[in-house]
Amino acid sequence: MATNEHVNLGNSTSTSFGVNVSPREAVLVSLGLTMPEAAKPVAAYVPWVRTGNLLYISGQIPMRNGSMIAKGAVPREVSIEIAIECARQCTLNGLAAAKAALGSLEAITRVVRVGAWVCCDAGFTQQPQVANGASELLVQVFGEAGRHARASVGSIALPLGAPVEVDFLFEVRPV
Amino acid sequence: MATNEHVNLGNSTSTSFGVNVSPREAVLVSLGLTMPEAAKPVAAYVPWVRTGNLLYISGQIPMRNGSMIAKGAVPREVSIEIAIECARQCTLNGLAAAKAALGSLEAITRVVRVGAWVCCDAGFTQQPQVANGASELLVQVFGEAGRHARASVGSIALPLGAPVEVDFLFEVRPV
Amino acid sequence: MATNEHVNLGNSTSTSFGVNVSPREAVLVSLGLTMPEAAKPVAAYVPWVRTGNLLYISGQIPMRNGSMIAKGAVPREVSIEIAIECARQCTLNGLAAAKAALGSLEAITRVVRVGAWVCCDAGFTQQPQVANGASELLVQVFGEAGRHARASVGSIALPLGAPVEVDFLFEVRPV
Repeated sequence: MATNEHVNLGNSTSTSFGVNVSPREAVLVSLGLTMPEAAKPVAAYVPWVRTGNLLYISGQIPMRNGSMIAKGAVPREVSIEIAIECARQCTLNGLAAAKAALGSLEAITRVVRVGAWVCCDAGFTQQPQVANGASELLVQVFGEAGRHARASVGSIALPLGAPVEVDFLFEVRPV
Repeated sequence: MATNEHVNLGNSTSTSFGVNVSPREAVLVSLGLTMPEAAKPVAAYVPWVRTGNLLYISGQIPMRNGSMIAKGAVPREVSIEIAIECARQCTLNGLAAAKAALGSLEAITRVVRVGAWVCCDAGFTQQPQVANGASELLVQVFGEAGRHARASVGSIALPLGAPVEVDFLFEVRPV
Repeated sequence: MATNEHVNLGNSTSTSFGVNVSPREAVLVSLGLTMPEAAKPVAAYVPWVRTGNLLYISGQIPMRNGSMIAKGAVPREVSIEIAIECARQCTLNGLAAAKAALGSLEAITRVVRVGAWVCCDAGFTQQPQVANGASELLVQVFGEAGRHARASVGSIALPLGAPVEVDFLFEVRPV
């Protein structure tokens, strides 16, 4: 992953942090969000695969600075508000993987699809509200190009006790 | 969405209703099914995204005329027969989204993949029979081009209490 | 499906069994694994669909010689070790479907994505370890080209009582 912001290939913007970031990363900065290092896969797979103009990102869980934001089922163990924050963190982690793949978020031409799993109790009906934590951040970062097809469903249990898992399909610029 | 059947770009067929419908929509008519208006997304996403020759349709739930056909888990709260009808309604809603995207179902060259989630009790094993409500309608409408890859799984809970959610990937004619 | 190994279109290798198998099938042989017949779909769909350079394989369950290796939820009814073996069998079945589609596994240029569902109890957190049964076999067979994006999640129940279901997206050689 390119950790030096100065080497971004996209258009860059000066921020109060004195580093050049691409326009889409500047949105993250303006939202007070920090682009994390791309997470190491939990197991024998890779964070992303590109085929043609499609970039598949592996399922992301809400790790931040090496630990899970929250664990358990919504709403009994994790509130909807926290679950929304989890979906947002999954998205930040997915964007980190995309940047690692592409060098810059500016190479993304469209968010195509988002899959969201919410670890929840039987009878929980608000998976869409939780998944909005992912969808709304994508629209903030990418504008119209951030609007995506989506499926959000409940799950009895997710890896490492994650309350939310999200995966992503991006359309990217031809190389 | 083009609500005026007369403006369909595909080949059209006269029906007893006195309107011209495309051949594939005529199948729906012959089955006594009404193509609904494309459903509004429940949240911050869009009903479909096209990338290249692929059209991704968001996860559909069995809303009909603004309300859910049934709610709850199969088979305890919702019978398998009703769940099959739900999968069929999800498909009708997915076709409405595809028509909104493309102008006509005739622009679909192949149904590529269907994902089906069945809200069910532990120990339920008949997710494939439920998902057949979707698969069989697709084959009725598209013939051989309607045969698709599929994954059907159980889910502890689905959005708004839906017993079934289905998403779709279509291959479409180049523009 | 081409059941006669001699008609493979890919490069072939002589084995101790006296038949010619392609290099990737030779890996299976060296692992003591037998490529099964492509499984019949459980219902109204097909085992695979190709669109462009993408090959979608339907969700596979751990059937072997016509019966399920194990049934039930992990870890209460099925141990993690057996579940890993199930994920491996799903993968073998997925490779059989791919061979049926393509004539030879050598036509696969990349494993793009794997989706893994683990039938489990609430609170189970080791879906990734189970899914590794699929991922590691793919890397053994395809080497670097076998590294894939992945989402692994828990499920309350799977078709026919399967402890694991896995689906696959392959990038394949242009025809």
